[in-house]
Order: sequence, then C-alpha cells, then structure tokens
Amino acid sequence: MTLAYGGAIEHLIDSLARLPGIGPKGAQRIAFHILGTTEQDAQDLADAILEVKAKVRFCDVCGNICESSPCPICSDPRRDHTVICVVEEPKDVMSIERTREFRGVYHVLGGAIDPMAGVGPADLSISELLERLRDGAVVEVILALDPNIEGEATTSYLARLLSPLGITVTRLASGLPVGGDLEYADEVTLGRALEGRRRM
Amino acid sequence: MTLAYGGAIEHLIDSLARLPGIGPKGAQRIAFHILGTTEQDAQDLADAILEVKAKVRFCDVCGNICESSPCPICSDPRRDHTVICVVEEPKDVMSIERTREFRGVYHVLGGAIDPMAGVGPADLSISELLERLRDGAVVEVILALDPNIEGEATTSYLARLLSPLGITVTRLASGLPVGGDLEYADEVTLGRALEGRRRM
Repeated sequence: MTLAYGGAIEHLIDSLARLPGIGPKGAQRIAFHILGTTEQDAQDLADAILEVKAKVRFCDVCGNICESSPCPICSDPRRDHTVICVVEEPKDVMSIERTREFRGVYHVLGGAIDPMAGVGPADLSISELLERLRDGAVVEVILALDPNIEGEATTSYLARLLSPLGITVTRLASGLPVGGDLEYADEVTLGRALEGRRRM
Repeated sequence: MTLAYGGAIEHLIDSLARLPGIGPKGAQRIAFHILGTTEQDAQDLADAILEVKAKVRFCDVCGNICESSPCPICSDPRRDHTVICVVEEPKDVMSIERTREFRGVYHVLGGAIDPMAGVGPADLSISELLERLRDGAVVEVILALDPNIEGEATTSYLARLLSPLGITVTRLASGLPVGGDLEYADEVTLGRALEGRRRM
C-alpha cells in the first residue's frame, strides 16, 4: 500500500478493515465518510465504541449483556419468570425479543457444544441454568439454539440433562421459512416441515 | 427496536449503521465484535477515528488529503512535476498510486460537474488547476475522471478549457477491463475498445 495518504487515514482504514464484514474497499469508503462528517459525528462514534467497552457487562442471572445486573428482562416483574428460553448468544435474545411473541425470561449459554473448536458443556453456563431450575419455580425450558450441528448437539445434550427434572422441555419448530419457496427448501428443512405438520 | 440491550450497545449499533455500506445486521455484528475485543483494540479504533478528524487536512497545492501541506506527493522532488493527473476524489489518487505506473503529480477536483446535484465548474478546484498551469512548467495534463456521465462532462469541459494553453491534454484509455470477458462487455465499452485499438 502506498503512503499517498498520511498515517492517520491509513491507520483508520486498517482499524476498520479488521472489523467483521468490512473489506479493504469498504474500510476506505467508511474512512472517507468519517473524514467528511462533522467533528461531532466522529466524536459520537468514538464515544459509542468506548462506552460499550466501559459500560456493558453480563447479567448475573441470565448471562445476557446489560448495563446493570440483573438485566432489564430478568428484573421485569411483568415477565413470566416460570418460562426460560435458552439461547446461544446475546444477539439471539434480541432476535427473539423482536418477534414480540415471548414474555418469559432468557438464559444465554455463551455458545454451543463444539468439540472441534474445543467447546464442551463445562465452557457454557449450563451449571448456572441448572442452578436457576433448582427451586422448582420454572415450569418450561424452551431450547432455542441455532439449527446447525453444534446447536442440535447442544439441544440433545440439554434435553437429556433436563428430562429427569420433571420440567417441560420444548424446542423451536423447524420448517419452511415464511416467505420462502418450497422449491428452494433443502431436504432436511422440508423433511422437518413434513414431520412437524399441523392439523388445520 | 426492543431495549433488550442497554443504551450503550444500542447507541453503538445506531452509530455504526449510519456508516456507508453497513446495514442493521452488520452493525449488530460489529458491535458484538467490539464488545468481544480487548479494551486496547476498542481504544485504538476510537483513537483512529478521532485522529483522522484532528490530523487530516487538504494539500494547498493539489487538494489531496494529507497531514502536512504540501502533501508527500507534491513535495517529493523525485516525482515529475511537469505531468499533472486530474482526478475527482482523494481516493482516486490512491487507486492510481496502487498501479505504480504514474510518477507525476495530482490535482484533486473535489468532484465532477453534475448539474442535477447543483455542482458546477465553480464548485470544483478548476481555478486552482489553471493557476498551477500558469507558469508554463507543466507539459501534460492527464484527465483521469470517472467513466460516467458526470466524469465525461467534466472531461469535455476541462479539455475545452485547457486546449488554448498549448499543453498536451490526454485522458485514460477506455476499453475492455483486463480479466474481463468480451461476451459480457457493454456496447459502449466494446465500441470504445474498438475505436481505441492499437497496432501490435
């Protein structure tokens, strides 16, 4: 790379290109955008980055990210604390919240069992989940892990682990995505959709 | 949007989503990436953003961005100051520098003539270009504007403006992109490639 620009803009392009989903061209475009914005906008962005590192922590109850523990969901008395939805990552909480269909609480595992990557059950917050189920107040655990190999393995593991506790354990339905096209559905998804067919 | 996350991460996602080429999903992904990086990496990124705003300015000679004026290219005695390459934006300078084929200097117009967007010749650094040509030291001006309608209009305008000065005015060759496929070339490009054919 030439030094046609000074060090500052090269430094910014390099820093941006390290972020996920941003290539060298995109980093250059963003760097020039920042160069063209007001001082205030640039300051806002820099502040937002540092603020996240300074303020965000994990909820002691559910493991979700939050600014004060317990998180707003765990400390909300209007939510149903007898239903726990188990997800892999904090961003999955946000995805489910967006549906506005779930009024229970969450448990964030921090990943899924993945022997190839060296992630075993002990690396996830499974003991914390069992601890939350100990007092018998929880009546249902919904397993909402990613529908991939690691997610399926973790779902099976948790289902086996929770079955002796006498708690209802459910999982998200597999099937055709809404707005999708039957023709382009893969065999496994279509098989699951058939298996899980519902009476109308 | 739900407030499942605290304000800090929502603020960062919002700030990131305002950057060009980053959608809401990409912003969320980057925000979580930043959350997972070290304090030092986050600080580096924030510093890089502020550094660019604080340090980067425009070269008084060529209009390119730089940290000290004149810019490294304009102040480099090993470069050929008798050939000026005229481009629209600072990023075009970087593109041409990457070819390692050009040893002259640049003139950054700051855009192209675009009546629809209200950009006329007076909004570009054309008078500064004429000023640089006044002492007769420059022998060639290469017009390297974007090959689109605005770039073509600006190229024609500048060629007409410069022709009475007795300076050689050239433009970049139009033709097939290297590695491209004749079948997929558009008619205009293929027409230009034919028109500009070279004896072997």
